[in-house]
Amino acid sequence: MPSAVVVRRVHFNAAHRLHNPDRSAEWNRATFGPCNNPNYHGHNYEVELCVEGDIHADTGYVVDVGIVKALFQEHVHVHLDHRNLNLDVPWFATRLPSTENIAIFIWDQLVTRIPAGRLQCVRLWETPSNYVEYRGA
Amino acid sequence: MPSAVVVRRVHFNAAHRLHNPDRSAEWNRATFGPCNNPNYHGHNYEVELCVEGDIHADTGYVVDVGIVKALFQEHVHVHLDHRNLNLDVPWFATRLPSTENIAIFIWDQLVTRIPAGRLQCVRLWETPSNYVEYRGA
Amino acid sequence: MPSAVVVRRVHFNAAHRLHNPDRSAEWNRATFGPCNNPNYHGHNYEVELCVEGDIHADTGYVVDVGIVKALFQEHVHVHLDHRNLNLDVPWFATRLPSTENIAIFIWDQLVTRIPAGRLQCVRLWETPSNYVEYRGA
Amino acid sequence: MPSAVVVRRVHFNAAHRLHNPDRSAEWNRATFGPCNNPNYHGHNYEVELCVEGDIHADTGYVVDVGIVKALFQEHVHVHLDHRNLNLDVPWFATRLPSTENIAIFIWDQLVTRIPAGRLQCVRLWETPSNYVEYRGA
Amino acid sequence: MPSAVVVRRVHFNAAHRLHNPDRSAEWNRATFGPCNNPNYHGHNYEVELCVEGDIHADTGYVVDVGIVKALFQEHVHVHLDHRNLNLDVPWFATRLPSTENIAIFIWDQLVTRIPAGRLQCVRLWETPSNYVEYRGA
Amino acid sequence: MPSAVVVRRVHFNAAHRLHNPDRSAEWNRATFGPCNNPNYHGHNYEVELCVEGDIHADTGYVVDVGIVKALFQEHVHVHLDHRNLNLDVPWFATRLPSTENIAIFIWDQLVTRIPAGRLQCVRLWETPSNYVEYRGA
Repeated sequence: MPSAVVVRRVHFNAAHRLHNPDRSAEWNRATFGPCNNPNYHGHNYEVELCVEGDIHADTGYVVDVGIVKALFQEHVHVHLDHRNLNLDVPWFATRLPSTENIAIFIWDQLVTRIPAGRLQCVRLWETPSNYVEYRGA
Repeated sequence: MPSAVVVRRVHFNAAHRLHNPDRSAEWNRATFGPCNNPNYHGHNYEVELCVEGDIHADTGYVVDVGIVKALFQEHVHVHLDHRNLNLDVPWFATRLPSTENIAIFIWDQLVTRIPAGRLQCVRLWETPSNYVEYRGA
Repeated sequence: MPSAVVVRRVHFNAAHRLHNPDRSAEWNRATFGPCNNPNYHGHNYEVELCVEGDIHADTGYVVDVGIVKALFQEHVHVHLDHRNLNLDVPWFATRLPSTENIAIFIWDQLVTRIPAGRLQCVRLWETPSNYVEYRGA
Repeated sequence: MPSAVVVRRVHFNAAHRLHNPDRSAEWNRATFGPCNNPNYHGHNYEVELCVEGDIHADTGYVVDVGIVKALFQEHVHVHLDHRNLNLDVPWFATRLPSTENIAIFIWDQLVTRIPAGRLQCVRLWETPSNYVEYRGA
Repeated sequence: MPSAVVVRRVHFNAAHRLHNPDRSAEWNRATFGPCNNPNYHGHNYEVELCVEGDIHADTGYVVDVGIVKALFQEHVHVHLDHRNLNLDVPWFATRLPSTENIAIFIWDQLVTRIPAGRLQCVRLWETPSNYVEYRGA
Repeated sequence: MPSAVVVRRVHFNAAHRLHNPDRSAEWNRATFGPCNNPNYHGHNYEVELCVEGDIHADTGYVVDVGIVKALFQEHVHVHLDHRNLNLDVPWFATRLPSTENIAIFIWDQLVTRIPAGRLQCVRLWETPSNYVEYRGA
């Protein structure tokens, strides 16, 4: 069977702040600039979920992208959308909510749940000008 | 002289929360849904600043859009970018930071400062799916 | 109260064919070209629903765009999405499913149902390269 | 008959330089900045051609957007695409090739040629961040 | 010689329906949902054609993207654009016109015809929210 | 440490002409078509700078994309933006300013300067319809 990568775009928005509590206030301001502002700021995050696998003869699908979106809604969107990543998401209690780490969170929530094929890549736009690709550890 | 509208796109990102302190918690949740979440969420805001006026024969310009952007940076971006609109911007102490009201804030900050032509419209995207046009009171 | 226009983007996809049964096959081929192909073709339609009105002091909203989207889903999307406009939508039994006429259909389905403000414009993209604006008869 | 606005997006790319020969080199550098660089620079221009008129009952069209594009190709694209506006286009021998003036050129080339409805607006993007709307003198 | 990947975006639109005639009507409705609607629906398909190869010293090109587009027009667009994939394209008589399979059709039509370099990837958007990457069997 | 790719989008605009002085005028016209026009044309170039590396525990970053942009401004933008690539950039005195070669120029200017991780890919759009990916020699 030929294989392909299928991709579903989804999105959420959230507030966050980059601040490493193990470092000084001065180091944080120098390292993170306005992303360190104490009262948070936010983004519209765009996500691409990429699933690689064989194309099934009976459906013509690698995986139904409607199922991929439903899994995102159930296991990611409910935790991140309209949330403050620092305050509302326990996973970020000990991790900086950088785009890199948010991509890892999304990967970890979905990697074992994709029902056909395998999660190949999470691509996460923080703004229209910057994004991250994560393909697993 | 012929006239035209020139438009400059700019952007900022911010956190906010929709909550009317004069109403009950229940009314706020029912009215604003997840936008009422207590710990804020955020957006990448895209802005179009539209200036209408005569085209000057010596420059071919209605207005130099570089100046329009510089005015935005000086009088809007510095106040809103990487900020929490509810906590960091005094203008919103008594106003809800809805897209409509943020557009009014941008208008008010710029309307008297445009050096040629007149501000015709502020168009403000909160997400790629919704925006507001404001043309003055 | 200041007024503004708020806009919600929504979308659907559909099949259609441009064919005027009162004219000859030759006239139809000459007028509509490949859009006259007998077995239909299709598009991803993007829609902007524009509502103009006063900004309410208690919400900061002209209208809740979530309600605008819900009305679209209930009164437009259910009729047009994943449909053949010629065969499945009675309104087009006597009208050509051109972008212009589809915009009128959307307008007619929504104009009396907007709960605050008034429908100002339906903007309908047939492709990324062409769209129509309709503001009522 | 109801009326509507139909819009066709088209594009071209060109080199240009902003320089007013009636003014000093110093004034030109101060006014136009890098746009005054002597050896030209260039852009991918995106154009929206907006035609307003009644919707014809026999076609469902205000105007066939394929005809609008063909007129653009014949009367605008052939003059501007892959050209140096300053050196190759006689119309700009006495006018600055600003976005405003290029929009006027496009308008003048098309306004009397639209076969149905009337040209309502030429919208011209110089970059994804700035554009001009021109609606006639 | 250094090598690179060059990419040309092209597009077409078409109607289709997902229906496996070897399975029951019930299975088809459950599996394909509204994509199984009997009278077809449609999409604006966006395509990226990626060609990998050495950069030629005399042209600075891996391949002239104008030739890549011309090959697409001649060997793909003529078969798919403004067509009903199920009824008008013999290749789909025995295959489901899923995005995955349409990408394979495009690949098969072009892979032996690229005049310089080699076809590396066909990326096919069915909607702005989902796409497929195919790199050969 | 997990690794990821981070990407920063930047842009510039420039004039250029494709012309190989070692070949005849006829060969150049046949090979490059309107891109060979003698007085130059131009583009808005969009660039994606991709950096691959480990995610640092103290910042959550592979690399600060603000630094990547600053390096682009200092080592690329200053040379290419609002310039004529043929006349103003010595590197192109002996190379054709094709999209492929411009990507190599950007790579060469940045590859040794990325302060964390390594430059993985330069993706360069000449127009919204064509781009090049370069990953080093």
